[in-house]
Parts: sequence; structure tokens; C-alpha cells
Amino acid sequence: MALIMMRSVATTRRGFFKLKRSSNGIRAFSSLLTSPPSKAVFYERHGPPDAVTRVIEMEGVEVKEKDVCVKMMAAPINPSDINRIEGVYPVRPPLPAVGGYEGVGEVLSVGSAVKHLSPGDWVIPSPPSSGTWQTYIVKEESVWHKISKDSPIEYAATITVNPLTALRMLQDFVTLYSGDCIVQNGATSIVGQCIIQLARLRGIHSINIIRDRCCFTDLHLQSSSSYRVGSDEAKEMLKRLGADEVFTESQLEVKNIKGLLTNLPEPALGFNCVGGNSASLVLKFLRHGGTMVTYGGMSKKPITVSTSSFIFKDLSLRGFWLQKLMNSDKVNECRNLIDHLLCLAREGKLKYEMELVPFDDFHTALDKALGKLGSQPKQVLKF
Amino acid sequence: MALIMMRSVATTRRGFFKLKRSSNGIRAFSSLLTSPPSKAVFYERHGPPDAVTRVIEMEGVEVKEKDVCVKMMAAPINPSDINRIEGVYPVRPPLPAVGGYEGVGEVLSVGSAVKHLSPGDWVIPSPPSSGTWQTYIVKEESVWHKISKDSPIEYAATITVNPLTALRMLQDFVTLYSGDCIVQNGATSIVGQCIIQLARLRGIHSINIIRDRCCFTDLHLQSSSSYRVGSDEAKEMLKRLGADEVFTESQLEVKNIKGLLTNLPEPALGFNCVGGNSASLVLKFLRHGGTMVTYGGMSKKPITVSTSSFIFKDLSLRGFWLQKLMNSDKVNECRNLIDHLLCLAREGKLKYEMELVPFDDFHTALDKALGKLGSQPKQVLKF
Repeated sequence: MALIMMRSVATTRRGFFKLKRSSNGIRAFSSLLTSPPSKAVFYERHGPPDAVTRVIEMEGVEVKEKDVCVKMMAAPINPSDINRIEGVYPVRPPLPAVGGYEGVGEVLSVGSAVKHLSPGDWVIPSPPSSGTWQTYIVKEESVWHKISKDSPIEYAATITVNPLTALRMLQDFVTLYSGDCIVQNGATSIVGQCIIQLARLRGIHSINIIRDRCCFTDLHLQSSSSYRVGSDEAKEMLKRLGADEVFTESQLEVKNIKGLLTNLPEPALGFNCVGGNSASLVLKFLRHGGTMVTYGGMSKKPITVSTSSFIFKDLSLRGFWLQKLMNSDKVNECRNLIDHLLCLAREGKLKYEMELVPFDDFHTALDKALGKLGSQPKQVLKF
Repeated sequence: MALIMMRSVATTRRGFFKLKRSSNGIRAFSSLLTSPPSKAVFYERHGPPDAVTRVIEMEGVEVKEKDVCVKMMAAPINPSDINRIEGVYPVRPPLPAVGGYEGVGEVLSVGSAVKHLSPGDWVIPSPPSSGTWQTYIVKEESVWHKISKDSPIEYAATITVNPLTALRMLQDFVTLYSGDCIVQNGATSIVGQCIIQLARLRGIHSINIIRDRCCFTDLHLQSSSSYRVGSDEAKEMLKRLGADEVFTESQLEVKNIKGLLTNLPEPALGFNCVGGNSASLVLKFLRHGGTMVTYGGMSKKPITVSTSSFIFKDLSLRGFWLQKLMNSDKVNECRNLIDHLLCLAREGKLKYEMELVPFDDFHTALDKALGKLGSQPKQVLKF
């Protein structure tokens, strides 16, 4: 691990490499307060994350009067983090950059003008912001949202990108009442699991579509019976979370898809994070006048819709992007929702599987997040 | 032409064949007022309209106290009328039925309880209702909307299905202001022509997409230059109506579609009546957060949308169906809009090409409407 002294980017990269050095290596200015050196996942160009990222040590930076220095405790590897490093995400930090977008940390020191945070407080960046994959971050007070210190750190680290997406999607598009029903594909994703639990807490039923899957990671061993076992396990898991119905895509290869529902009302709201045929299945379940919200495209296939779905079935198709929402006037509202979600997590009412991994094992965690080692739980770096 | 006496359906088919006869051919009841016999386009089964329809004479029917007997003056052949006869339209009258859905007529006689209509008034069925392709219709007073007698009958006959669709689509989805812009495909359709003119009256610009077309009807003569001439004529026609920009689909086979627009703002609203690639072109023009409304599917191809269009471009896709809207609590509002549209037609501010054809030439008009004789103006039956 090299100790990096950033010169060329010193004035453009606030927070990470703020410390300016003169050409002879002597500090051009000094400050009363400086952050400790930070170990960080750093990349200078876009590309495959396992090829372009490296863990480096960066010098400490000045903590200005409105700044807060946070010692990071945990931060997840989300798919959107990977897309940002690959350069395929529409909004991404300028290069060079430190990876990561959400996480949780403890306040180490504060600038003289900081009013509402003190050393020892637990905070998350809210809205999430780039550079959480490092041991120390310095950012302005306004970036940080103080949270309860009895939150499990893996939930505190991951509460925004996935659970808040689930919560907002359930409330922002269609007014749902107890007894209503939603339908979603990609139901085993963390957003999917959160949707099931958050819906159930409001008395809302869920119809869940999962891909046909196998219980073996060795592809050569796959057979129809092993597929069923893998799917059955996923179904069991979702039902334990509160899912009313779980179907594999192949189970839905029937003419009358709604005939599979016995006591559930037709859903007015659907969620799509897959695209392709899986999105069409969500549309088939929707009732007249229903809305499908797209928030992901795991299959990398587009969404295809018949003309009559729009004209005669009056379906609406929308999209959801948390990043845009949180950069609007909704920030404070979202912070209240995050407190609510953390409360649910503390009470055990919101659960999803995660693996806490030491930061030193970053590259193994990255490989797992990239899917190189088969299906794995969400990887959360522990600093 | 046979004089048809309807027995089996007498109690189910109000208006057309209401007159009940006993088995010995003697009237089972009599009334003070009876409509004249009606010449009608009649079909007993669904199928190709030129095969299943025939013009028959039907007996007069009783005009009850709340009924109005209307002598029809004109009624168009709309594509949806054809779909209803084919049996492919999702809502259609039970069989046997008389064709047609909109039109204009003159009140011939009224029942004793009719309050707001008198013989000589001009009326249109509003919302449109089935059976306008006949010389005399008897329906309850509430069905009829009285219109100004100085309206051109071909516009009065066609004012609802196409122009009202255009007007409502311009106002129901996105709030537009003078200087804003819309984009549409299928711009040479009557709805498309109305959108151009109604938008222009509000100071709203229009970007119009048309198919590449040829000026010759003989397919063997088509060449690239003749295509251009046909397209150029269509462009000229639309620009005379007030179109700002008109592109053929092949002109839009460029990487930077918005680079074609010089002074126009990016449209927030788009209209699609084609589907397939033509719908994708509308989506490409839309600005971030824009809405595309589908009201037709002329290409019979579905609409395909990328995941990123929903998530990162925040596009909304909706549908519009006039029939559903008019069967809601919006009927009176729609009648006011129809009066407004007829006023525009009288002032020459709303124009589209039509061919008035004698009812006796129904089957020729139908062939033209079916596209058997090449591109033809809207066929309007004159009784």
C-alpha cells in the first residue's frame, strides 16, 4: 500500500485529497485540525472494478470550521457502486475518486462552527455521497445525518440505498390501503425483501416473482429437480418475510396468469428491477389502471409493452431513481424516513442478509459482490 | 334490401329493433309515436366488415316519452368502427348490431317527457354510441347533445372521436404553456392534424414524425425520389396547418436526434399512435421527465423502452382512450369542449380533409376506409 500525495487534483477533490503541497514537499498552509491519514479504495480510471481499484493510504486533510471528520465504521458494496467505477452510471464522481456511496461512521472531530454534531455521534451521509470506502472522511456538517447509536451497524450502513428505495416506491406512486396488493419481480433482491416487509407492516399483500434457480453453484449439476429445490428455498425465505405468493417465472408460463391468484385482489402497483419477460409478467398481473415502477434492469433487456396495455388497460409506466429524489427538496423528509427504517431494523421488523467483511479483505468482498463466487449476501465492509 | 322484422332480439336491442311483434304478426302493443323505417348497416356476426355488413331496412320503433327520434344527416367510418365490426375492439355492442359510433342528425320527433330538444334541432350522440349508420335513430334524450345548426355537417359528424381526443390529450397529461413543444408520430392522421392546429392556437410548437411515403399508388413505381416527393407533400400539408418541424422516420436515423432541432425547446409531452420504432423516436425527442401518451398502434408493433429511460430519464408512459373518459363524470365537460371545437371548425381554425359520400354508396366508402383503394380521406356517410 503506497502513501499517496495528491498534487494535480488537490483543489478539485474536496474531502479526500484536500491537503495541498508545494513543489518542495513543504505544506503551503497549515490548519488547527487535520484528519488522520485515510486508507481508501481508490481508482484513477473507469473499468472493471477488480482491475482499476486499489487500496491506498491518503494523507490527512484539513478539517475546516464547518467540517466534520468521521471515522467510518461500515459501508456496503452496492451494484450502483460497481457501475460508478465501471463508468456506466449516468452520474458519477470525477476521476480520480474513492469508491462507495453510503455507510455509517462515528464523528471523530468537528470544526469550530459545527453546531449539531459532536465527537462520538454516529452519522450517515444523507443523501448518500461518494467516497465512503475509506477509514476517515471529512465533509461539511450538512452532509451528515445523526442516527441512534443502538442501530446495528450493518443496517445503518445500508439503510438508504435499498430500504429507502422500497419505502418511497411504496408511497410515492399509488395510494395503497390495508388489504391492497402489490406485485414485483426480482423479489429476492434486498429492495424486494424490504418491499415485502414494509408492505406487510401496512397490511398490503405481495405477489412476488423470482427467477428459476438452482441450489447448486456447480452449473454442471443443474437439473430440473435441483432448480426446484433452489427455487423452493427462495420461496420459503420470502414467505418467512411475509410474502403472500411467490412464483418462479416458469410457473407463470400460463395463459391465465391471474387464475393463479385465489384470494388476493388485483394489484394496482408493480415493481420491476429485471426488464424483459419478467417485466411483462408484472404488467400481466396489474389491474386496469395500474402502475409499474421500474427501478432496475438486471436482465439488461428492455421493457416491451403492447399498445392495448396503454389504451384499453390504462397502465402507467414510471421510473424511480433514489439519487435524483434525494437531491431534491425531499432531503429532510427522507432523513425522517431513514430514522423510521432504522427503528424497524432495531425492532427486527426489517431484515435482510448481509456479510460483514474486514476492510482488509476488500478485494475478496468485491469479487463476491461482482458475482464471481456465486450468489452471495450483500457485502458490507467493516473498517 | 330486405325488410327485417326482429323477433328474438326485440327486448335486448333498444332503439333499433324495439318493436315487438307477436307470433301472428300483429303488434302486441301500440304507441302514439313511431319512428319511420330505418335503412341501416347491419351485421349479425363479427368478421371482415365488407363481408359481414349489409344494408337493410328495419321497421319503425316506438318513441317512448323520454325518447328522441333523430333523422341522421352524416356519420363517419372510423377505424374503431371497423374494429368493432371485426370483433377485435375491447368494447363493442352485442350482436346483432348496427354499425357506426358518432354522427350528426336532426330531431324529427320527441316523446312527451322530453324537455330540452325539439324537432329541427341538430344533435350528436355524446358520448358517442353505437348504431349511427342508419337513417333514423331513437334514443333517450340524455344521449343527445344539441349543437349549433351552422356547423358544417361533416365536422359535426366527426368532431368527437378524433378532435376531442386531440384536445383532451393536450390538456389531460402535462401542463403546457405558450412556447412549449410537443412531439408526435402518425402526424398525418386526423388526430395528428388536430394536435398541430390546437397546439398552435395555444402557442405550443409541434415536432411531427411521419412515415416515409410515396406519391404514387402503384407500388412498382416507387423509388427513392418518388418517396421524397410523397413525403414532401405531406410535410407541406402539415406545415400549412401550423407544424413547426416535420421529419420522416428515415430522417431520424441519426445518432443525435435532438441536434435536428434548432430553436425548439425539448418537448415535455409526446403522442404515439404507431408503436414500434416510431414510438421509440417520440421517446428520443422527449425531455427529462417527459410523458408519452399512446392512443393508437397503427404499426401493430409493441412499444419497447429501455430501463434507463425510466430510471435516469424519468420518462412516464401513459395511454388514452376516449371511450372510457366519456363514460365517466366528464361527459358535460366534454360536451363543452365539443362546442368549442365546433366553433373552431366554423371559424376555419380546425381543418381536415373528408369525403362526403351518399349512404347508398356505403360499400364503396367502406372499401376506401378499409384502405383497399389506396390512401383516401376520411369517409363520411351522408344520409
